[in-house]
Amino acid sequence: MIVVSVGIVGGTGYTGVELLRLLLRHPQVTVRVLTSRTEAGKRVADMFPSLRGHTDLEFSDLNLDLLKQCDVVFFATPHGVAMQHAKELVAAQTKVIDLAADFRLQNLEQFEKWYGLQHSCPDVLKDSAYGLTELNREKIKKASVIGNPGCYPTTVQLGLAPLLKSEQNLVNPSCIIIDAKSGVSGAGRKASMGMIYSENADNFKAYGVSGHRHHPEIVEALENISGQKGVFDHIVFVPHLVPMIRGMLSTIYLDLTEQGANTDIQALYEQFYADEKFVDVMPPNSSPETRSVRGANELRIALYKPQPHKLIVLSVQDNLVKGAAGQAVQNMNLMFDFAEDAGLTGIGLLP
Amino acid sequence: MIVVSVGIVGGTGYTGVELLRLLLRHPQVTVRVLTSRTEAGKRVADMFPSLRGHTDLEFSDLNLDLLKQCDVVFFATPHGVAMQHAKELVAAQTKVIDLAADFRLQNLEQFEKWYGLQHSCPDVLKDSAYGLTELNREKIKKASVIGNPGCYPTTVQLGLAPLLKSEQNLVNPSCIIIDAKSGVSGAGRKASMGMIYSENADNFKAYGVSGHRHHPEIVEALENISGQKGVFDHIVFVPHLVPMIRGMLSTIYLDLTEQGANTDIQALYEQFYADEKFVDVMPPNSSPETRSVRGANELRIALYKPQPHKLIVLSVQDNLVKGAAGQAVQNMNLMFDFAEDAGLTGIGLLP
Amino acid sequence: MIVVSVGIVGGTGYTGVELLRLLLRHPQVTVRVLTSRTEAGKRVADMFPSLRGHTDLEFSDLNLDLLKQCDVVFFATPHGVAMQHAKELVAAQTKVIDLAADFRLQNLEQFEKWYGLQHSCPDVLKDSAYGLTELNREKIKKASVIGNPGCYPTTVQLGLAPLLKSEQNLVNPSCIIIDAKSGVSGAGRKASMGMIYSENADNFKAYGVSGHRHHPEIVEALENISGQKGVFDHIVFVPHLVPMIRGMLSTIYLDLTEQGANTDIQALYEQFYADEKFVDVMPPNSSPETRSVRGANELRIALYKPQPHKLIVLSVQDNLVKGAAGQAVQNMNLMFDFAEDAGLTGIGLLP
Amino acid sequence: MIVVSVGIVGGTGYTGVELLRLLLRHPQVTVRVLTSRTEAGKRVADMFPSLRGHTDLEFSDLNLDLLKQCDVVFFATPHGVAMQHAKELVAAQTKVIDLAADFRLQNLEQFEKWYGLQHSCPDVLKDSAYGLTELNREKIKKASVIGNPGCYPTTVQLGLAPLLKSEQNLVNPSCIIIDAKSGVSGAGRKASMGMIYSENADNFKAYGVSGHRHHPEIVEALENISGQKGVFDHIVFVPHLVPMIRGMLSTIYLDLTEQGANTDIQALYEQFYADEKFVDVMPPNSSPETRSVRGANELRIALYKPQPHKLIVLSVQDNLVKGAAGQAVQNMNLMFDFAEDAGLTGIGLLP
Repeated sequence: MIVVSVGIVGGTGYTGVELLRLLLRHPQVTVRVLTSRTEAGKRVADMFPSLRGHTDLEFSDLNLDLLKQCDVVFFATPHGVAMQHAKELVAAQTKVIDLAADFRLQNLEQFEKWYGLQHSCPDVLKDSAYGLTELNREKIKKASVIGNPGCYPTTVQLGLAPLLKSEQNLVNPSCIIIDAKSGVSGAGRKASMGMIYSENADNFKAYGVSGHRHHPEIVEALENISGQKGVFDHIVFVPHLVPMIRGMLSTIYLDLTEQGANTDIQALYEQFYADEKFVDVMPPNSSPETRSVRGANELRIALYKPQPHKLIVLSVQDNLVKGAAGQAVQNMNLMFDFAEDAGLTGIGLLP
Repeated sequence: MIVVSVGIVGGTGYTGVELLRLLLRHPQVTVRVLTSRTEAGKRVADMFPSLRGHTDLEFSDLNLDLLKQCDVVFFATPHGVAMQHAKELVAAQTKVIDLAADFRLQNLEQFEKWYGLQHSCPDVLKDSAYGLTELNREKIKKASVIGNPGCYPTTVQLGLAPLLKSEQNLVNPSCIIIDAKSGVSGAGRKASMGMIYSENADNFKAYGVSGHRHHPEIVEALENISGQKGVFDHIVFVPHLVPMIRGMLSTIYLDLTEQGANTDIQALYEQFYADEKFVDVMPPNSSPETRSVRGANELRIALYKPQPHKLIVLSVQDNLVKGAAGQAVQNMNLMFDFAEDAGLTGIGLLP
Repeated sequence: MIVVSVGIVGGTGYTGVELLRLLLRHPQVTVRVLTSRTEAGKRVADMFPSLRGHTDLEFSDLNLDLLKQCDVVFFATPHGVAMQHAKELVAAQTKVIDLAADFRLQNLEQFEKWYGLQHSCPDVLKDSAYGLTELNREKIKKASVIGNPGCYPTTVQLGLAPLLKSEQNLVNPSCIIIDAKSGVSGAGRKASMGMIYSENADNFKAYGVSGHRHHPEIVEALENISGQKGVFDHIVFVPHLVPMIRGMLSTIYLDLTEQGANTDIQALYEQFYADEKFVDVMPPNSSPETRSVRGANELRIALYKPQPHKLIVLSVQDNLVKGAAGQAVQNMNLMFDFAEDAGLTGIGLLP
Repeated sequence: MIVVSVGIVGGTGYTGVELLRLLLRHPQVTVRVLTSRTEAGKRVADMFPSLRGHTDLEFSDLNLDLLKQCDVVFFATPHGVAMQHAKELVAAQTKVIDLAADFRLQNLEQFEKWYGLQHSCPDVLKDSAYGLTELNREKIKKASVIGNPGCYPTTVQLGLAPLLKSEQNLVNPSCIIIDAKSGVSGAGRKASMGMIYSENADNFKAYGVSGHRHHPEIVEALENISGQKGVFDHIVFVPHLVPMIRGMLSTIYLDLTEQGANTDIQALYEQFYADEKFVDVMPPNSSPETRSVRGANELRIALYKPQPHKLIVLSVQDNLVKGAAGQAVQNMNLMFDFAEDAGLTGIGLLP
C-alpha cells in the first residue's frame, strides 16, 4: 500500500485541525510537516486537545526545503500564502492543495477585486484544477495544484449541477436566488469582536448582503458547469450566520423553464449522483439537516416543487468537511489514485 | 387612570407566560383569571419560576362566568378554542384577543383546509379584526374580537406594506420569495420528540417546505394590504428552524418593476413608518439581528438592492413579542384607548 | 419626583449596555454622559442595536468636568480606571459606583497581588462602601463611593449570609467548597481567541482553578459578614464556563456543626430574607435555574441537606444584573433614597 | 480476521445510534439484528439521517431466536429489559452487554429501591461483570454478561481509582464531593417537556439533588475498587445539566490524609494510567474540556491541589462514548480478544 508524506502549512485554524483529524487516521498518509508562523515549537496537541494521544507533531517554521520532500502540501492559510510557494513546490514534484482562494478564480480581475491581492503566479493558476471533486475529476487527477472550493460554492455547485449539466434548458439562469446559512466556524478561528460567543449565541442575522467573496466564485463555477458565459451575473446570494459550530445549508430558488417543468427533476438528480459516494439525493419531502453530516464528508440534497415552474433545492454539508478539509482529502485521494473514500468513511456525529 | 381586568385562557404555553410577563407590569391592567385545562389549582409561578415573587395567580378551570367579568380575555390556546367562546364573551361585553388562528383567516375554506377544523362562529369572524396593529388600527379600535397575526405573517406584512400600499406598481406580486427563519420557541411548549434539545441544538434545517399554515394567512393579508386579489398565489414561503430560543428573521426577495427600480425604496419605507414606535427602518447596509429585539415589542427592517430590479427585505422580530404576546398587548392598548406603548417600553436584552 | 443625572464611563462593554437598558427606563434618572476612550463620537445605538429608538446618546471622551456635573457616575471600565477619578468626583459632590474591582478589597496587598495595580487612592477606598446591597445598606446609603461586588462573590455572600450572620456557630468555616458556573458574558466583551463562539459552544470546562480574582474578595467578604478573621482562608473556589450567554449558579457545599445539624436551615433563610425584594428563598426540593432570573435583578436560593451534617446551597443570578448592573442601580437607589426597586421591577425573560 | 455478528436491542435511542456509528465501522463486526418495539419495519437510516448510505438495516421485532444466532447482543433499552432475556441468550452462547442498569448493582436492595424493579435473574447478575474496562479487565474477558457502567460513575471511578487502589491511605473516604455536569443527551431521546430545546438552551441548573440513581452505583463501585465496605456512604453527588448535547465533567473534591498530602499525586495518576489508551492524565494546570473528547472514546483527567490537604480531580468524557456506547464496544473487544481499540480510534470532533 502506497503511503504519501504530507505537509500542512498553517495548521492553527479550523481547517488545519480538521485536516489533521482526517489525515492522522488516513491509511495511506503520514503527516510529516506542520507549519505555523506564530506557533513554531509548540505541540499541536497542546493547542487542540482533541489531538492529545494521537500525534506528537510540533509546529515548525515554514521551511520550503522540508515541504519539498513531501508528496503533497495542504495550505490551510489565509488567502495569498499558497500562491507564493506553489511554483517552487510544483517544480520539486510536490503537489499543492490550497484551501484558501488563491486557485479558485481563473478570472484575475475578480480575484484582485474581491481579495485585494495581485496574483503572483497566473501561469500556475492556469494549470491548476478547481477542486470540486464530483464535477472535475479528470482534471484533478492530472493536476499538480488544486484550488479547493469555498464552502458556500460547494453547496451551490453540487446543488445545481444536474440541472446545469443537462443538455436541456431546464432553468432560467438569470433568476437564481441562493439563501445560504452557515455555522460560525465558517468564519475561521480568529480573535475578533464579531465572533465572540455572547455576540453570536441565541442570535441570527444575515451578513455580507452587499457582497461576499464567494459570489464571483459561484458565478465562474456555474459558467464552467453549464458552459454558458455571462448568464449567471444576476444570481442573488445572501449568506446568514447560524448559532451553531459546524454546518451549512443553502436554500436555492429556481425558475423552471417549460422543459424543466415537464422534467422529473428528482429522477434527474438521482441518476446524476447515482455513483457518488459523498452526494446523497434524499427521497421526496425530505428535510436535510446539518447534523446529519456533522463531521462527515457528505452533502445531502432535497428537492421541492412548490409550483409547476418553481424549484427549491436544499443542499447541506459540514462546512469544515465536504466544504473544506474533507473535500481536500478527497482530491488528494484522486491525485494519488487512492480509493476516493480512503480516510473519509467516518459516519456523522448525531446527536 | 383606567385599569382593565384581564383574563388569560391557556397560560401554560410560551405565549401565555409572555403575556403574563408583559401584563403583570402593565400600568393599566389587572390580571384576574388564568385558566388551564390541565393545571387547575397550580400556582403559575410554580410552573414558570421567572414569575416567582411577581404574582400569586393560580390556574383555574375555564369558567365562562368569571371570564365574562373581565374586560378582555386573551386566548393563548391551541387553534379552535377561542371560537368556541368568543360569541358568549362578546355578548357579555368582554373583548377577545385570540393568539391562535381562529380569527386570522376570513377565507373559511382555507381555514378548514389548513387547520382541519370547521369554524364554529363565522359571523363573529366576519366582525373580527385582523390584529396587525400598524396596518389595521381603525378596525382594531372598534372591534370586539381580534385575530392576532401569526409570527411569520407579521414579519412579511410589515416587511412589504410600504411597497404594497404604494399607489404605484413597485413590485411583481407573482415573484415573491420568503425565506424565513425562526427560533425554536415558535413551535410552542409541548413534549414532542422533534423539539427536544439534542435534536435541535447545533443544527439547522428547513421544515414545512411542502406547506405551512402561515402561507394562506400571508396570501390573504397581502391581498388585503394591496387591495389586489389573486395575485399573490405564487409566493414561495420556506420556513427554517434556528437553534436559538427566540427570534425570527424573514429574508424576502422581490422583483422590482421599472417604476420600483426608479423609486427610492429606503425613503419610501422611512416615510411609511416615520410615526411608528415599534417598527424601525434601519439605515442602508444594516443587518438586523434577532438579538436586537430579544424581549422587545419591535420589528426592524433593512433593505438591499443587489441589482437594479431586485430588492431584498430583511425583517426581524422576537416571535414571542411583536410576533405574538407583545402585539396582542399593543392591540389591547388600542381597543381601550391606552397609549399604544403602555406596558411595552421595555428595551431588548442584549447580550 | 427627584431625577438624578447620571454619567457612565466605559459604556462599550456588557455591563455598560446593561446599565443603559436599566437606566434609560428608570423613572428617576437621566443619563447625561456616556464615555469611551475608543468610540467617541459614535452613537451608542449604532454599537448596541437593541438601543435603537431608545436613546440618541453618543460616546464622548472622558471629560471630568462634565462628569462632575452628574449626580452619580458609574464606572463600567477595566479595573484601575475608577480609582484615578474617584477623589476628584467625590470632591465635586458626585457619587461614584465602580463596577470593576477598585473598591472591592480593603486589603491592599491582596488587591495589588491579584490585579497587578497599586491602589491610587487608599483613603477614598477606606471611606467607600462595599455594595452588596442586602448586607450593607446603612453604609451604602451614606457612602460617596461604592465598590460594586464581583458576580461570583454576590452569589456566595447572599448564599451564605444567613448562616454566617447567625449568632450560633452553624457551619465549619474551614470546609467551604464553592463550585461555581457562569455564562460566557461574565468574561466581558473583548476580542480574544478563548472567547469566540466555536471555542465555547457545545463545550464545558473549569477555568482559573489555580486561582481566581474573586477568591480574595469572597474571603474578605465572608470575614466581614461573620465578623471572623482568618477562618475562611481554606475555602475552595472553582469556577466553570457554561455555554450560555447570561446566568450564574454557585453550588456551595458546607459542613454543618452539631448546632447547624439541629437547626431548621430552611426557616433560617426564609426569615433572614423575608423582607428582601430581590432575594428568593425557594421551597424545599427546588432547583433554581439561571433562566428564572434572566434579565431580572434577582437571586434565588435553594437548600438541601443530603446528610445530617452536610448542607448544599444553590444560589443563582443573572451575572449582568444582580451580579453587576442591576445591583449597581439598586445601590444608586439607596444612595439617593429612591425606592430600592425603582427601575428594577422587570420580570425575567423565560423562555 | 475474526468477525462477530452483533445484535442491538432497542436502537432508537442515542446509545443505539452511537453503537451503530461505532459498530458499522468496526473492522471485526457485522451488525445482523436491530430491534425496536415501536419501529419494526422502519429503516434505521430513515430515523437517523446520519446513517443514510451507511446501512440498510431495518428495525425488527425482538425475536429471541434471531438474537441467539448473534455472537453478542447489546441492550440499548430502558432499565429492566436486558434481565428478561439475558439467561436465555447466555444459554445459547450469546454474550450480553447491557447499557442500562440491570447488571450494574450487585446490591439487589439498592437496585430495587432506585429502579423500582425486582431483579429477574439474580444468578446471572452474580456471574456478570461490571464493565468499567480499565478497572475490571480480567473479569470482563471471561464474562458472558456485562453491566456497562453509568456515565457519571465512569468519570468518578476513573477519576478516583489511582487513589483508591493505592496501598496507602491517601484520601478521607467520608468527605468526597462530586459536582458533576452533563450535556442533555445524557437524559436520552424521549419526548418530555423537561427536555425540549427552549427549556434547556441558554440555561443551567442542578437536578436530582435529593437523590440520583448513579449514587448507589458510585458507592458500590468505589467499595469494590478500594476493597473497603461502608466507608463511602457519605459521598455527596450533585449532577447539573449543561446546555450542550454531549459531554460530561465531574469536579471531585477530596480531603487528603497526611500521607496523601505528601504524595506526588500527579505522578501516581500518570503511572497508574501509563499503559491505558483511553485515559489521559493531562499535565499540571490543564483544564480538560468536554469538546476535547467529543465523539471519542476517551476520558481526560486533570489534578489540582489548591491547598496541601485538598485535591481536586477534573474528569471529562463524552457521555455517549466512553460513558456508554464506546465503553460497551471496548468491553466487546476484550470479550472477543480483539485489539482493545478496534473500531475506537476515531479522533474527537473539535471544533
